[in-house]
Amino acid sequence: MAAAAVVSNGNHAAVQTPSTGRFAAGYSEVQNSRLDHSLPLPSVLKSSLKVVDGPPSSAAGNPDEIAKLFPCLFGQPSVNLVPGDAAGELAPKALKIGVVLSGGQAPGGHNVISGIFDYLQDRCKGSTLYGFRGGPAGIMKGKYVVLTPEYIYPYRNQGGFDMICSGRDKIETPEQFKQAADTAVKLDLDGLVVIGGDDSNTNACLLAENFRSKNLKTRVIGCPKTIDGDLKSKEVPTSFGFDTACKIYAEMIGNVMVDARSTGKYYHFVRLMGRAASHITLECALQTHPNVTLIGEEVKCKVAAKKQTLKNVTDYVADVICKRAELGYNYGVILIPEGLIDFIPEVQQLIAELNEILAHDVVDEAGIWKKKLTPQSLELFDFLPQAIQEQLMLERDPHGNVQVAKIETEKMLIQMVETELEVRKRASAYKGQFKGQSHFFGYEGRCGLPSNFDATYCNALGYAAGVLLHSGKTGLISSVGNLAAPVAEWTVGGTALTSLMDVERRHGKFKPVIKKAMVELEGAPFRKYVSKREEWALKNLYINPGPIQFVGPTADKVNHTLLLELGYQIL
Amino acid sequence: MAAAAVVSNGNHAAVQTPSTGRFAAGYSEVQNSRLDHSLPLPSVLKSSLKVVDGPPSSAAGNPDEIAKLFPCLFGQPSVNLVPGDAAGELAPKALKIGVVLSGGQAPGGHNVISGIFDYLQDRCKGSTLYGFRGGPAGIMKGKYVVLTPEYIYPYRNQGGFDMICSGRDKIETPEQFKQAADTAVKLDLDGLVVIGGDDSNTNACLLAENFRSKNLKTRVIGCPKTIDGDLKSKEVPTSFGFDTACKIYAEMIGNVMVDARSTGKYYHFVRLMGRAASHITLECALQTHPNVTLIGEEVKCKVAAKKQTLKNVTDYVADVICKRAELGYNYGVILIPEGLIDFIPEVQQLIAELNEILAHDVVDEAGIWKKKLTPQSLELFDFLPQAIQEQLMLERDPHGNVQVAKIETEKMLIQMVETELEVRKRASAYKGQFKGQSHFFGYEGRCGLPSNFDATYCNALGYAAGVLLHSGKTGLISSVGNLAAPVAEWTVGGTALTSLMDVERRHGKFKPVIKKAMVELEGAPFRKYVSKREEWALKNLYINPGPIQFVGPTADKVNHTLLLELGYQIL
Repeated sequence: MAAAAVVSNGNHAAVQTPSTGRFAAGYSEVQNSRLDHSLPLPSVLKSSLKVVDGPPSSAAGNPDEIAKLFPCLFGQPSVNLVPGDAAGELAPKALKIGVVLSGGQAPGGHNVISGIFDYLQDRCKGSTLYGFRGGPAGIMKGKYVVLTPEYIYPYRNQGGFDMICSGRDKIETPEQFKQAADTAVKLDLDGLVVIGGDDSNTNACLLAENFRSKNLKTRVIGCPKTIDGDLKSKEVPTSFGFDTACKIYAEMIGNVMVDARSTGKYYHFVRLMGRAASHITLECALQTHPNVTLIGEEVKCKVAAKKQTLKNVTDYVADVICKRAELGYNYGVILIPEGLIDFIPEVQQLIAELNEILAHDVVDEAGIWKKKLTPQSLELFDFLPQAIQEQLMLERDPHGNVQVAKIETEKMLIQMVETELEVRKRASAYKGQFKGQSHFFGYEGRCGLPSNFDATYCNALGYAAGVLLHSGKTGLISSVGNLAAPVAEWTVGGTALTSLMDVERRHGKFKPVIKKAMVELEGAPFRKYVSKREEWALKNLYINPGPIQFVGPTADKVNHTLLLELGYQIL
Repeated sequence: MAAAAVVSNGNHAAVQTPSTGRFAAGYSEVQNSRLDHSLPLPSVLKSSLKVVDGPPSSAAGNPDEIAKLFPCLFGQPSVNLVPGDAAGELAPKALKIGVVLSGGQAPGGHNVISGIFDYLQDRCKGSTLYGFRGGPAGIMKGKYVVLTPEYIYPYRNQGGFDMICSGRDKIETPEQFKQAADTAVKLDLDGLVVIGGDDSNTNACLLAENFRSKNLKTRVIGCPKTIDGDLKSKEVPTSFGFDTACKIYAEMIGNVMVDARSTGKYYHFVRLMGRAASHITLECALQTHPNVTLIGEEVKCKVAAKKQTLKNVTDYVADVICKRAELGYNYGVILIPEGLIDFIPEVQQLIAELNEILAHDVVDEAGIWKKKLTPQSLELFDFLPQAIQEQLMLERDPHGNVQVAKIETEKMLIQMVETELEVRKRASAYKGQFKGQSHFFGYEGRCGLPSNFDATYCNALGYAAGVLLHSGKTGLISSVGNLAAPVAEWTVGGTALTSLMDVERRHGKFKPVIKKAMVELEGAPFRKYVSKREEWALKNLYINPGPIQFVGPTADKVNHTLLLELGYQIL
């Protein structure tokens, strides 16, 4: 360890030696083993390359409105990167680029940044990369750090967003757009990379449009991030972080399944992240084969067809438990998406009525206040377990509203199922024993060490963002495809953000939105699950995926959702 | 895959080919990769070996009483296995051996069984191994399965106890001892291996004594199992499962830490398994460096010195949070052992009074019933958050008693800390923002795929149990030592179970017990933690251990507790 230099960069003290064998102080062996993990690049990014425009693009919906909202950018082509000859290559050029992390954590964010950085080092010598701190607010306030090799090194292939942290602010008002433009001008930025989810990428496109309309030279490129997996399209096959988060949750679910089978006396109700869409729950089901999986999109579809209520969901779970009891199994595992009750309008209606009543009336012990509920809401309220009733009454946010996010759906369901089973027991329709155990797997999955897939995918996304900015593109989202093939064969390009957009009417105005990709009931992952669920319900076909491996033959597996959507048959 | 034979063994359908490349159907890639993982044996177990008796043994306490309780076995020597010459080797002999899993799951149990099996295959050709199903009840009821290579194969290096399942029944009454003896005679058992914790090993010794007193030929050997890590002594340096479970919990804690630092706005309160002893919490702290770690044994010690109450614990956590707020950190991670409140007598007193009152009196809304509480208990009750008060009043077991195990200590602490911080905020002594997030990591850790350490350790424990039974020993616990050295240098022997025992007086009678090994406040692991905790409290020296790796340079690391107790310096 001759000539070691200690470099402090806020959170970590990185110890660096001139050759290999570097490590970061205060790291575990596994963290350290990841630092020098080399990431393969798609072949096209390793050679001379050419940026090829596709045909003019349109929008996901309401192209006329999108055209009005994005007069400069609407209709611009998506692009592909293809091998070029050395003559046609982009001229090396020192660039000034900013990067920002926006929204919730997802494993791999650091690798997008190091991917951009490595591109600049490789092809644009003399460039500067600014990391805006704490999310979009960092752009508006001009709060940044200059990213150097020493600064970036300890974060390579590490989880979390702590290199520059993230934030949930938005750049929305004319004043905020002006602040952002001021920073871009002050730093003389050639480009900005926004790493975020659907909202953040919509914002990135608005910023690209704004900068273009002001004739600023600053280009804006987005990158698809979210563990929820609900930012995806034909061109952007997945968002980063989904792979790692699902594998972490599936590890825990698999362990709980083996415990359930070994112990033989618990039903584990596992709530998983995913408020808007149920991709995580579906992927975990495909990886582990639980006895019951509730998919929000399916519940919503049945609700719309007047076939599903909270009572029906309860009955469905109770039915499986009763059938299993007849087979001698008084244990099992049930997966529930975080957003389940958001999919059930009757619950939304009850909450709206409660908010109204509690804002204006006194809640009397005798329960006279309840008469203000509509009959349907009163029936639902009385159906809910007492603990949930109390949670609805007591847990209010500062505005006095019920905090839906704090409702522990898995505990609510346990209590409702328990009540239903007691009824059936009295009617001699159920002879088993029921003990519920609740779990919520959430924060554990957002900041894990990225899987080899996410590490490599993010690196490619960042590297591609560098190419796109270098070639002067704006308003595109970095898109890497053909992801089931070996990395060398991955395709790389940029998709016009406006082509992913539709409009929503809010407060009488059209707002552009990239629609969240929900679980498609006609899609391959859901159909695969449906084809298996009856078997999984009654037999114990549990699979224990085990902990994510970083080396060895099992290290490079991609998640089932992606493979199925790309047309591969699995299971 | 020529000549594949499908062998059904209840839970798994094992597909077997004559050569290598075998796999179990319905397994994940990682599960499959573990099946053929080869386990190194201590050198002594690979050669001709000799069983050498040590000096006569005594007891951990009250030797006179132990001598009365174990007239046949008391005083017998512990033994060591040493290399012998071929001439002195144990004569090969076909044995009939039974094995049983007792109590809660711990990763590695299957490998103890395969270790016994492999010993019999290697050295006692023609032997039969019976697996008693569902714990000690399986012995009493004669419920067993004959373990064959095909039956055992799919469980090699896999988590869980599902090969033969476990149970919590005890063999205690004369009638039950008779049932056990009947089974031993019926199956003509030469030996029985009991895999369990402190209680189960005490039971194993009683069974050994009982069989010896009846002149049965059946010998009984114990094996040390428990994720809690509270069954250990000088001769038995650790119980299996502790290593894997702590690594799984530490993986999750590390992820949550990176999330805390990235998000910057949550305090994560993590409750960990360990009702009696806090070894798991301490080990996880040594692996991850949280801001606050509550160790039950320390709390109890301070309570005894009249220095610690629930209020003091709350104040301590609040103090750290206030100091961190001054440094600009409004986030952190706090570890809590499951059994924390069991260590605080005032809480026990309150619960006892509540049980009494609720059994006999009506609880009136006006709260007049509270006047029946002693002043100290009333003060504590009023200090508790409302949700916990309600939990104490509502959640009763079938006998009407408060269910202490159901009290979510981490949520209780969040609410008490929140209340305390509000008081300080009003007094301008705290200017930060506090948001608590609760976690319980429990069932996720009991059935994970065993770490390389646990897999190898369990195999050696089982193999050694085979040797001990082959040599005619009884009333010993399989003991494998020198665990920080390469596996080849591990020592192997059997420790007299009576030498680990003391007596407790219950219902006027002396009962033999193997005392639970608590966290020693003078021990190296706790002292290491104490030397670091002030630094960990205020700085963010989090370590993210990452997922357990099964191959590569990070796969063979042993837990910190064991290394420190064996005299190694770490950190």
